[in-house]
Amino acid sequence: MMMKRTTLFACAALAAISFTAPAMADDAGEIKYRKSVMKSIGGHMGSIAGIFKAETGNQTNLAVHTQGMAALATITGSVFPKGSDFGETGALPVIWEKPDDFAKAVKMFESAAANMNAAAMSGDMAAAGAAFGELGKSCKNCHENFREKKK
Amino acid sequence: MMMKRTTLFACAALAAISFTAPAMADDAGEIKYRKSVMKSIGGHMGSIAGIFKAETGNQTNLAVHTQGMAALATITGSVFPKGSDFGETGALPVIWEKPDDFAKAVKMFESAAANMNAAAMSGDMAAAGAAFGELGKSCKNCHENFREKKK
Repeated sequence: MMMKRTTLFACAALAAISFTAPAMADDAGEIKYRKSVMKSIGGHMGSIAGIFKAETGNQTNLAVHTQGMAALATITGSVFPKGSDFGETGALPVIWEKPDDFAKAVKMFESAAANMNAAAMSGDMAAAGAAFGELGKSCKNCHENFREKKK
Repeated sequence: MMMKRTTLFACAALAAISFTAPAMADDAGEIKYRKSVMKSIGGHMGSIAGIFKAETGNQTNLAVHTQGMAALATITGSVFPKGSDFGETGALPVIWEKPDDFAKAVKMFESAAANMNAAAMSGDMAAAGAAFGELGKSCKNCHENFREKKK
């Protein structure tokens, strides 16, 4: 347990370095980061679904999730840098082979997440429900066309 | 695949209902929602670590993660409603038996996440690194004292 804490402090110490020295990012690091970003996105998607299906009584938490999702959508394009197509990833080569197509798909997600957030913030829950459907379609679009099928 | 889409639309349709009818939340639903929230938190923690360790070149994404984490911390207290202590959960009974102690632990996380975000926003990366260490300690505090040890 002490080691875990030591690691955290090592991270803290590294922070000073990482912003002054050139980035030491490599493909594996980028893939790991991408998976963390997707984990947050997936968590928000599950949370929003839970709220819409009234599986939780925490309906007032909706905006935290839609804002978080909208913010994460704006950085989604950045988590697929060149070179991060090999290794422990389900990201398909077509992402880098057809960058314009991929950019469109990411933009679709970004717009859908922004619309979902706007609808949730407006309090119009029928609009939010419809926006949630569109958001799900934008997830599906990328996962079907740019990600390896899960076995 | 069509079924998946249908489910999403069903969610959308449910949205209108869920905000007018009494919540149908049950313990299993609350536990599922809590896990989704923790998934987003874990994703942000991993992302921030990746940025601090320069495993990714996306250093400019830091604020999205620290803002997201700070927002999620504000709702963390809400994801442990009474009754959500049975079932597929590692949450320990002590959460509900000693609510004041648990509230303090959650508050520690909330403060640490807010401090982390403020430091990241200020651009003072040494401060952000230190704040990240404190944030990690607040995670550890809850996971050691209020969660079943992972096997």
